[in-house]
Amino acid sequence: MKLRTRDVFTTMRPDLQRVEARVEEAADVDYPIISTLVLDLVRAGGKRLRPLILLLAGRAYRYDPDPLVTAAAGVELLHTASLVHDDTVDRAALRRGKPTLNSVLSSGAVILVGDYLFAQSAMLAAATESPRVVAIFASTLADICDGQLREMFDAHRLDQTREEYERRIYGKTASLFAGAAEMGAVLGGATEADVQSLRAYGSDLGMAFQIVDDVLDLREGTQHLGKPAGQDLRQGTVTLPTMLFAARIVPDSPEDVRLRAVVGGDLDDQADIDLVVADVRRSGALDDALAAADAFAERAKSHLEAVPDPETRGLLEEIADLVIDRTA
Amino acid sequence: MKLRTRDVFTTMRPDLQRVEARVEEAADVDYPIISTLVLDLVRAGGKRLRPLILLLAGRAYRYDPDPLVTAAAGVELLHTASLVHDDTVDRAALRRGKPTLNSVLSSGAVILVGDYLFAQSAMLAAATESPRVVAIFASTLADICDGQLREMFDAHRLDQTREEYERRIYGKTASLFAGAAEMGAVLGGATEADVQSLRAYGSDLGMAFQIVDDVLDLREGTQHLGKPAGQDLRQGTVTLPTMLFAARIVPDSPEDVRLRAVVGGDLDDQADIDLVVADVRRSGALDDALAAADAFAERAKSHLEAVPDPETRGLLEEIADLVIDRTA
Repeated sequence: MKLRTRDVFTTMRPDLQRVEARVEEAADVDYPIISTLVLDLVRAGGKRLRPLILLLAGRAYRYDPDPLVTAAAGVELLHTASLVHDDTVDRAALRRGKPTLNSVLSSGAVILVGDYLFAQSAMLAAATESPRVVAIFASTLADICDGQLREMFDAHRLDQTREEYERRIYGKTASLFAGAAEMGAVLGGATEADVQSLRAYGSDLGMAFQIVDDVLDLREGTQHLGKPAGQDLRQGTVTLPTMLFAARIVPDSPEDVRLRAVVGGDLDDQADIDLVVADVRRSGALDDALAAADAFAERAKSHLEAVPDPETRGLLEEIADLVIDRTA
Repeated sequence: MKLRTRDVFTTMRPDLQRVEARVEEAADVDYPIISTLVLDLVRAGGKRLRPLILLLAGRAYRYDPDPLVTAAAGVELLHTASLVHDDTVDRAALRRGKPTLNSVLSSGAVILVGDYLFAQSAMLAAATESPRVVAIFASTLADICDGQLREMFDAHRLDQTREEYERRIYGKTASLFAGAAEMGAVLGGATEADVQSLRAYGSDLGMAFQIVDDVLDLREGTQHLGKPAGQDLRQGTVTLPTMLFAARIVPDSPEDVRLRAVVGGDLDDQADIDLVVADVRRSGALDDALAAADAFAERAKSHLEAVPDPETRGLLEEIADLVIDRTA
């Protein structure tokens, strides 16, 4: 698996580097203090999965690198902009192992920097000159906001359905994976049926990605994630592993009482959060959540049957494996 | 003048009502508490000058209402979104005589509501299916952010040039007037030369509008503006009337010392701000600033020579008069 997952990055390196250059160019604000912070954030960025999916979805059809690289840079910047605002909303102190903008700049400056990055990402989407790409871009931004608003309004509530959880993480995370795959397929000139298959691939993959994220938040600590464990619990965000854990504990048991107090925000010491994290780990809920992520990743791969080019299909499958592999 | 300025609203009422309906539809968020607040804000909105300019710029050529109404609603929502974020940046308590979202919701919720409105405005721009309209939209958003960042970084500095001031208000305000006029002309199918003339009209008109705003901030109080006088001074924002005043006071005089202390943020009592406001009023700087606004409005009108349809040209001239009339 380790060997295979290197293929996709090797094959796509030249275009990913072009995406990188476009992103850095757009993040270069006129104010040195902000420019440095934004470039740090952009450079600390992860595996560039979203741009990669976009490039590959186009490559599966007609590979015209210019508009694909432009759109891919737009998608990565949209992601960065939404992280900047999300960290302000959550008042998070660390992101990608570094202080968030939010912890260094006033919240006013962070709002404006996020808006500036949104503007830059919209300019890149517009530069593709494809009305459909722009429409996907705009509706993806709306979906992301919807997901983040849901997360805010659903916070501190243990009585959520799996459907509510899935709708929320679709908006927050999967919508951008879906949009990236759709934009790539559109720019590649895929048939409408294939565009929809690739969109479905992106959507399911994004769901898998977020569930894995939710598991890692409970399983790993600062050393692996660059942020402390149990952040979601601290914010009252109820994720799938927590829901699965809640469904199996004895009502009014000490675990139940502790979980309700932490989710409700009545207990917020790190020690209390650590206890609930330990309860969840012990319950087996993490493995059950990972099984759900696996199912989404498998379903994502099943949508790739439509993809005509076997090499690109293989690379898109690799990405699905990579998303699940983060937990290995 | 009063009679004439009624013409444009009478003539354009049906289409402005369609714009209104599109804006309200887009502002209708899924969460009742937020939806009510956003609809209140949208309905309290002013004269809809930006959508009006867009509609008229199109009407001067080929009047195809559907895309024009869509783009006009997008422009009004972009304006609303930027007000929402700007009030958070400024921590303003009142806007249009009502409490800001910022004073009722957590700053996290306000960021997300602003982002949601940005997304809705981008969706409307995309719905025009004109790559150029989308490109204007995106670069206007970038200009607005640039202007707001400049306002933040230029705050508390009395040693600013007129050029810095103009660049800042261009971004913050005039860019959207310019973009609205340009989008309208593009959708109307104007020649490139005419598109540029209308853009120049919008830009100069927006400059006049912001200078008038800056004068009103010092001249009127809560009763007329729906917010207390001298807000800019309180935030350390140095506007044209303040710059003109500063240029004519005796160095180290009591007025000079007081002005420096208020702009620098060392004095922030309402009583101290009121004293500086009175100093500025007495100095005649407000009239000089209004003369500058007048000059921009006249220059705006001069760009209308290009407009072929005399009736629409007359209505666009009315808007320029209306912007200056706010001070009468």
